[in-house]
Amino acid sequence: MSRYFLDIAYNGTAYHGWQIQENAHTVQAELEKCLSTLLRTRIEIMGSGRTDTGVHATHQIAHFDMEGHLPDDLVYKLNSFLPRDISIQSVRKVHDEAHTRFDATQRSYQYFMHQAKSPFLEKLSYYHPKVVDVPLMNEAAKKLLGEQNFESFSKVKTEVNTFICTIKEARWEKQNDSLVFHVTANRFLRGMVRALVGTLLDVGLGKLTVTDFVNIIESQDRRKAGRAVPAHGLYLTSVVYPDSVYRD
Amino acid sequence: MSRYFLDIAYNGTAYHGWQIQENAHTVQAELEKCLSTLLRTRIEIMGSGRTDTGVHATHQIAHFDMEGHLPDDLVYKLNSFLPRDISIQSVRKVHDEAHTRFDATQRSYQYFMHQAKSPFLEKLSYYHPKVVDVPLMNEAAKKLLGEQNFESFSKVKTEVNTFICTIKEARWEKQNDSLVFHVTANRFLRGMVRALVGTLLDVGLGKLTVTDFVNIIESQDRRKAGRAVPAHGLYLTSVVYPDSVYRD
Repeated sequence: MSRYFLDIAYNGTAYHGWQIQENAHTVQAELEKCLSTLLRTRIEIMGSGRTDTGVHATHQIAHFDMEGHLPDDLVYKLNSFLPRDISIQSVRKVHDEAHTRFDATQRSYQYFMHQAKSPFLEKLSYYHPKVVDVPLMNEAAKKLLGEQNFESFSKVKTEVNTFICTIKEARWEKQNDSLVFHVTANRFLRGMVRALVGTLLDVGLGKLTVTDFVNIIESQDRRKAGRAVPAHGLYLTSVVYPDSVYRD
Repeated sequence: MSRYFLDIAYNGTAYHGWQIQENAHTVQAELEKCLSTLLRTRIEIMGSGRTDTGVHATHQIAHFDMEGHLPDDLVYKLNSFLPRDISIQSVRKVHDEAHTRFDATQRSYQYFMHQAKSPFLEKLSYYHPKVVDVPLMNEAAKKLLGEQNFESFSKVKTEVNTFICTIKEARWEKQNDSLVFHVTANRFLRGMVRALVGTLLDVGLGKLTVTDFVNIIESQDRRKAGRAVPAHGLYLTSVVYPDSVYRD
């Protein structure tokens, strides 16, 4: 039995998120169906983490196990067989016990907003025409760095052992008419990026000061943070593993 | 009565093209409906030319006439009112007899193809994974330049006085994983850009030589040219007018 990592991109528009659920069209279900058909055996995959309904990924990682050899042209065959909104970038053999979820050391997301109406970005970026103060949003974003309790930005109904995460990167970047929030952490809580972006926008709109923002972090109270921005601007862009997972 | 030019962008995916037709969802119909409601009078618009079902525009130009003053914030109001797949970039007062179709001196299109499967480009670019010889396609494209009869690249059922067009630009450009065909002419025949791209692809795939391509142009016979590529890679990107249209 050998284990493999798949590097997957998907447009989340048509899916009820990543994770398999009864009677729902999910990316994981679509991938398991195609892999099982192509490899002629029941394949289950394990993703690095869930993404919510409508959230996209440019590099989601998932593992699966398979007896014997993989066909050489598996990536090509999968891409021919999978719907147009899911693509496979690579399949890579890994250590037998490598685990996409437990071994990930960091994850990155990007949140895209466009400020001028664009007919071509409808489900790919959040249209937010109001003027925001980007330097101030970056000043607030810096307060997120480091190991902190982020319960204020977590969905209320979530069962986790700890709300502590280490954020390594949190910054806004202007790209033509778009504004992109880059965030990297060892782990994320459910709904965290969308709540962070919504609260940072409140700073950019002048509804909150940077001090208010720090107080919200410290309050550990979800009711204090801003609204979650829509899912369709969010992309999972990278999951990082230690080199040891690629060793046999 | 004053005349105005609208600069319009639209995602053609959901539309049966630009031009108003009975019982069809078209960009022109949508715009006339919104303008008439906002300006509280029946407004008709005239576009610089039709675009087919599924074809996009980043800068389509249309004119309309209106008594009295336009509201200052008409662009803002139109963008709030129009569906997300149509946007207005500007409204500009022009000469009373300026005509978007008859006064246009040149039009430009771009055709987008992507060679690696992308979940984010489904209706915005033509997925064409086969390897093509871009320098050879550019060599053939050069043969299009100048004033020539392009009947070979026109839809068969079309009523025009002449098949003669002057092509000023025809070149392929590599943009990351995409391949973009840029073409500019004084006028285009129906289906012309898609037939040109399909035939140039045959050159890039080695099915036709550059000499074959020249022979196809000279044959003035549509049956000789390649198939039309799909509409969803095509964008109307610019329409140019003499400065005199902007003078009162």
